[in-house]
Parts: sequence; structure tokens; C-alpha cells
Amino acid sequence: MVVELISVGTEILLGNIVNTNAAYLSQQCALLGLSLYYQTSVGDNEKRLEETLKTALGRSDIVILSGGLGPTQDDLTKEVAARVMGRRLVEDPHSRQRIEEYFQGSSMKKITENNWKQAMVPEGCIVVDNQNGTAPGIILEGEGKSVILLPGPPNELKPMFEHDIYPYLNAMRPEVICSVMVKMCGVGESAVETEIKDLIDAQTNPTIAPYAKTGEVHLRVTASAKDEKEARKLIKPVVKELRSRFGDHIYTLDEHVTLEESVIAMLRERELTLTTAESVTGGMLSARLTNVPGASDVFKQGLVTYCNRAKRKLLDVKKTTLKDYGAVSEKTAREMAKNGAFITGSDICVSLTGLAGPGTDEDKPVGLVYIACSYNGNVKVQEFHLKGERAKIRESAVVKALTMLREYILEEVR
Amino acid sequence: MVVELISVGTEILLGNIVNTNAAYLSQQCALLGLSLYYQTSVGDNEKRLEETLKTALGRSDIVILSGGLGPTQDDLTKEVAARVMGRRLVEDPHSRQRIEEYFQGSSMKKITENNWKQAMVPEGCIVVDNQNGTAPGIILEGEGKSVILLPGPPNELKPMFEHDIYPYLNAMRPEVICSVMVKMCGVGESAVETEIKDLIDAQTNPTIAPYAKTGEVHLRVTASAKDEKEARKLIKPVVKELRSRFGDHIYTLDEHVTLEESVIAMLRERELTLTTAESVTGGMLSARLTNVPGASDVFKQGLVTYCNRAKRKLLDVKKTTLKDYGAVSEKTAREMAKNGAFITGSDICVSLTGLAGPGTDEDKPVGLVYIACSYNGNVKVQEFHLKGERAKIRESAVVKALTMLREYILEEVR
Repeated sequence: MVVELISVGTEILLGNIVNTNAAYLSQQCALLGLSLYYQTSVGDNEKRLEETLKTALGRSDIVILSGGLGPTQDDLTKEVAARVMGRRLVEDPHSRQRIEEYFQGSSMKKITENNWKQAMVPEGCIVVDNQNGTAPGIILEGEGKSVILLPGPPNELKPMFEHDIYPYLNAMRPEVICSVMVKMCGVGESAVETEIKDLIDAQTNPTIAPYAKTGEVHLRVTASAKDEKEARKLIKPVVKELRSRFGDHIYTLDEHVTLEESVIAMLRERELTLTTAESVTGGMLSARLTNVPGASDVFKQGLVTYCNRAKRKLLDVKKTTLKDYGAVSEKTAREMAKNGAFITGSDICVSLTGLAGPGTDEDKPVGLVYIACSYNGNVKVQEFHLKGERAKIRESAVVKALTMLREYILEEVR
Repeated sequence: MVVELISVGTEILLGNIVNTNAAYLSQQCALLGLSLYYQTSVGDNEKRLEETLKTALGRSDIVILSGGLGPTQDDLTKEVAARVMGRRLVEDPHSRQRIEEYFQGSSMKKITENNWKQAMVPEGCIVVDNQNGTAPGIILEGEGKSVILLPGPPNELKPMFEHDIYPYLNAMRPEVICSVMVKMCGVGESAVETEIKDLIDAQTNPTIAPYAKTGEVHLRVTASAKDEKEARKLIKPVVKELRSRFGDHIYTLDEHVTLEESVIAMLRERELTLTTAESVTGGMLSARLTNVPGASDVFKQGLVTYCNRAKRKLLDVKKTTLKDYGAVSEKTAREMAKNGAFITGSDICVSLTGLAGPGTDEDKPVGLVYIACSYNGNVKVQEFHLKGERAKIRESAVVKALTMLREYILEEVR
């Protein structure tokens, strides 16, 4: 089955946003075993959108459009799709009610006349609820084709795809595809590629495909078979082999589990509490930990000590340490972690201090970051030289801290 | 003049990479005042690439292709483009020499037979040197059209575009395009649309285009004229009109300035220091503030008080407040902000407490967030009912906090 993507939005054509939706949807379609030959981006322009959709329907079985479902006059994806598929637009009472509910109690936002436009849907379509916005998703079927309309904002599109569109497409497939995501940290992408070259070269079914993420490597193992049980049976020995090669670097086999979630789960199992003492990352580590629902079981508090005075006052870092070694030093990281655990009464404290740039007054290089873990008065410190721009250095530092924390728990706490 | 982009590469269709080249090239074309109506991504497939290029040449004056210039058999962008433009491939001695030089002295890489493929160019083309790789760029002109081939890796494509392709396109332009980005916070997308409907309806030159971001609305005002001065003159009264309608909601006219940057700048101007006391956002606000280089001038420290005990110990929130009103209450937010400023010795403290879900033990709804600002012992608290999933609620809360802080400075501090 052949699927095609159309991203709608003048902001894409102006380069104001990077089209991450296309990458996400393509990945999902690959997972579903669907062939995808074309991605097109087109503006909020009636004629050109209509032409593009017609061309896509002429060569593909399923066309997924994203964007252009907003309440404004610009937004016309629904109108064009309905016309191409020969449908009238009618009001969907269920969607109208959901829009009403969305605005209820929201003191800042006022419902305006154009919001009701979002309750209009093509006659006879499948309406897909939007849990994170007011534009419902729409599936139009006809003449052996499916046209799927999704809202543009990724935080609306992704949950909707996962919850409703993936199962819809899955049910259309001739055979079953299953996959497992082997997620690793603390090992580099090229090292992983070298280590599994023999497996990649010999692969047929299952296949192994690597994905790199900042500081992590994910390997997707995918098998196709007549049913799920058969596919799982094919995947099992490959995962076992990967386990024997990468051991503790593997933190999960669950697609949806993030590194921070796995760390929180490890702490919860061991009934340990964690605190953070951040300088260079300014709260990014605690923000990431608290992404996890229920993080409060183990993470009670964090300190952002951005200036030297705060390091002294809140974390009791010695004046002489800061004077003699500087804020970005092994010794400062060590004191931050040790005192952070003591002051907050936490079992473990992770501290970060470093230079994210751009530019630096100090005679230390941008990208130099010290991370320390303290447990029971024992402290381990690591020095990192991270690459890239400010944002990249800060993000990498957070992943290094999570990775180090995880290794520390496995080694020191067990 | 109309330009069109074709991104070539199976890795794009599999979603293995995000197509940042398309965003970059689109931005550059917009800056050059070129109209861009279509972006297409297609795999390394001869037939489909040829078809896509022919379609593009049928409707656009300039077609920019990126990717597929590598040394392997897969890479066939050059071959297809030459055929469509009716040219033979011939060896370019200059490019052959550059490839030799590139490999000379490089201990890591060895030259292989297929590398010489990269020295083959369509007869009569303009060869563009690649300063960061072995694939030269190519410009093919014919029948009033230009076909431009660029290497796929962004670190090769961008410098080549900037150095050679931008000037080439610039020389072709009939007139100048200028734009200003009017960035607003504290006002919703539909409200803005309603407010400027008359301007949008009446627009010709300049045009106004709205862009929504979580919690913000951006309006791009674009004018075309014979020179930049003339274009700026056309933009000026429109921006003045927007200023009179939206007043202090407008936080910048600079494309590159973020909301957090504008807040940091306001604090710096007034020589005020800021601290954060975060519960629901777990450090996201301080992380966002410290995205800004030089944030340390005004932001010295932040406290993440995720549990009740931390709110008591670190922020001195009264036990009775937490017991009688709960952690998510107007009164707790107020004490967090007031005490946060006092304890850290900061001029201003922003506090956030709320429920991001999923699920809640309390009899309060998910999405309920209280944000408080304290200055000179005066505290202002606002209650919000935010929508969406956990991540969305937390992100919205951060933008609300920045917006509220900004308004607070304008109203209370001036």
C-alpha cells in the first residue's frame, strides 16, 4: 500500500518552521510497512492545494495532509479535501460541543465566531477527537482511497496519530509488522554501528535500523509475519543477541519509555530520593525529570545555582574553591553534589557546572562541563567536552547527567 | 520569480532525518523575495525524480535540488538533471583536482574509484566549488530556467548557498522584499485575527501573515518595492497601526528575539534581579530563561520546590496554608513568590504551582495553575486553566509566567 504526505502551511514555505511532522509521519508509515514515495509541502492556497491533492490521489492509496485546520480564513485544507472528495461540509454537533468545552473555564481565551468553523466536517467522514486543541482530525474514504487530515501543531498531531490513525492504518495492512525499540545510552552511534555491522549485513527478517538522538542510540528491530506471535518469535533472538553485546547500556525495550523515566523508575524501585544542583543547565535536568508523571515520588526539589553567590549561599560551596578553582571545576561540581544531598536531605544529588557559551571570560573552553553524583557521602565526578552551540551543549549535558546517574545507581547502589 | 525545492533522499522518506535543508533554503528564498509554492521530497529513484523535476520546471523558473550528489550508485540527481536539461556528463578537470586535494593529507579517508564520479558534470554548466566536501554544486541554465544542484549534508549545503548561490539568485531579482516580525504575547490567535480582519481584507502591499506559537502570536508584515528604503517606508505605517491596536502586547519587532530574551532585556535595563520558585514546571521556567546568553546578569538562582516539604523548607510556605488551601492554591503561589524574593534577596520572584496531570488525587482539575509575581513585597496572583496533555500544560504555564512577568514589570515597576 502506498501512502503520501502533504504538509500544508505557508510558514513551511517561508522556512519559518522546520517540518518535523513529515519526518514523524514518515517514520510511522515506515513502521507500518507502508511505502512512501513523495512528501510535498504546499501553502495555504486553494488552487495549488487542490492540484497537489489530486496528483497525490492519482498515484497513492492513502494521502495524509497535515496543517491548515485552524480557525482562520487562511486555513482551507478541510474545504479543499471535501471538494476533491465530493463532499459537503456539515456541522458536527459532537465537535461543536468539544470546542465549547475547550473554551469553558479558560479565562484568557475567548471563543470567537471563527472558532465554530472548526466544527464543520465533510459529510460522511470519520471525525477524530483532538485531545490537545480545537481542530478535530478527519478521515475521508472513497473509491478505494483514504484521505486523512491532521492538525499542524506537533503536540496535537502526534498524540492523535498514535491514538487513532496508527490503529486505523494498521487495520488496513496485509500482514503484521512488529517491532521492538532497543534504547541505549552511554555508547556512541558509530561504536554501535561497528559493533553490529555483522548483524546488519546478514539481516533479512527481522531488520535492525539505528536511530540517533542526542546522547542516545536507539535500534529498531522489525519483523513481519502472518501474525503478531510469529513476528515476536522472530524478534526475540535478535534482542537477546543485542543484550549480550550491549549489556547495561540498554535501558529499555519499550518505545515509549524515555531515559528520564527509566532513571525515575530505578530510583523508585530502590526507594531513593534525588535532588539536582544545576548551574550550566539552569533547571533543564529537573525540568526533564519532572516530565515524568509521578516523578514526585523520588524527586522532591532542585536548586538552580546560576551565580557564584548562589552556589555559596544555597549549596555551601567554599569561597576558596570558587576562587582557586573557578565555578567550572571538578572541585566545585563535587561540593555542589555532596552539599546538595546533605542540605536537602536527599539520598542522591546530581550537580552540573560548565560553560555553554557563546564566548567565555574564563581561560576554559566552551563545552567544558563537570557532572557529579553524590550518594552516601561518596562523590564521583566526570569531565566532559561537549560540542555544538549553547543549546546543544546544554541538552547534551542533561543526557550525560542522566546517563551518569543511571550508571552510578547500577555501580554504587545496585 | 518562482522557485521550487526538491529534496532528494530515501532517508527523508523513511523519516530518518528531519529536512532542515528545506527550511533553510525556503528562508533564504523568502529573504530574496522569491516566491516559493512547492517543496517536494523524493527518494533516490530515477523515474520518480525525473517526473518530479519535469513537473517543477513546468511551473517554476528556478528549481533547487539538494542531495543525491554522493559518490555511490544510489546517487543520481546529477544524471537525472543532465538528462532532463538535455546535456551530456563530462569530466571537469578542476573538480577532479579539488577531489584529489581534498583527500590529500586526510589520513582517515581513502580515495576510491567511485569518488571520480563526483568530477563528472553536465556539459556547459556552472560548477560551484564545495569547501566542505567532494561533491561540487552545479547550476544549469536553459530555456529561461535555472536548475541548481546542491549537496545534501547541511554543513556543505549552507556555506555553498551563502557563498555562491545567494549572490547568483540575488542578481536575478527584479525587486526588493523586506519584512518585519511583530511578536505578541498575552493575546490569543483568534482574537488577533478578529482584531485585524479589516487590515487583512484590505491588504495588498504590505501583506500581514499571522503565525501561532504556544502562547504567542507573531505577525509578519512584508512589503516589496524597488529598494529597501521604499519597502521599509511601506511597512512603517502598518506596524504603527498594529502598535496602536495591540500596544504592550507587542514585545519585539525583531525576528530573532524570543519572549524570554525580551524579558531578560527588560530586567537588565531596570537593573532588577529575578528568581524563580517552581513546582508544576519543575525548572522549565529557569531553563528557558537561561537559554538566553548573559541571563546571569539578572537571573542568579532558582528553586524547584516539587514537594510540600520543599515548599516549607526552602520557601517557608506556612504549614497551615498547605493544609487548609492545598499546594495548588492562590495562597501557596503567593507565599512562594513573596518568600522566594525575600529568601534569595532578589528583586522579583515568579512562582508557579499547579496540576499538570495525568490524573490527580486532589479535588482540583488538571490544568489548574496559579502563577504569582512578587516585587517589593507586593504580590499579584493569577489563576489559569490550561488545556492539553502534561507537556503542553507545563509549556503553556511557562509562557504564561513570562507573559505575566512582562506585564507586571510594565505595570508595577515601569
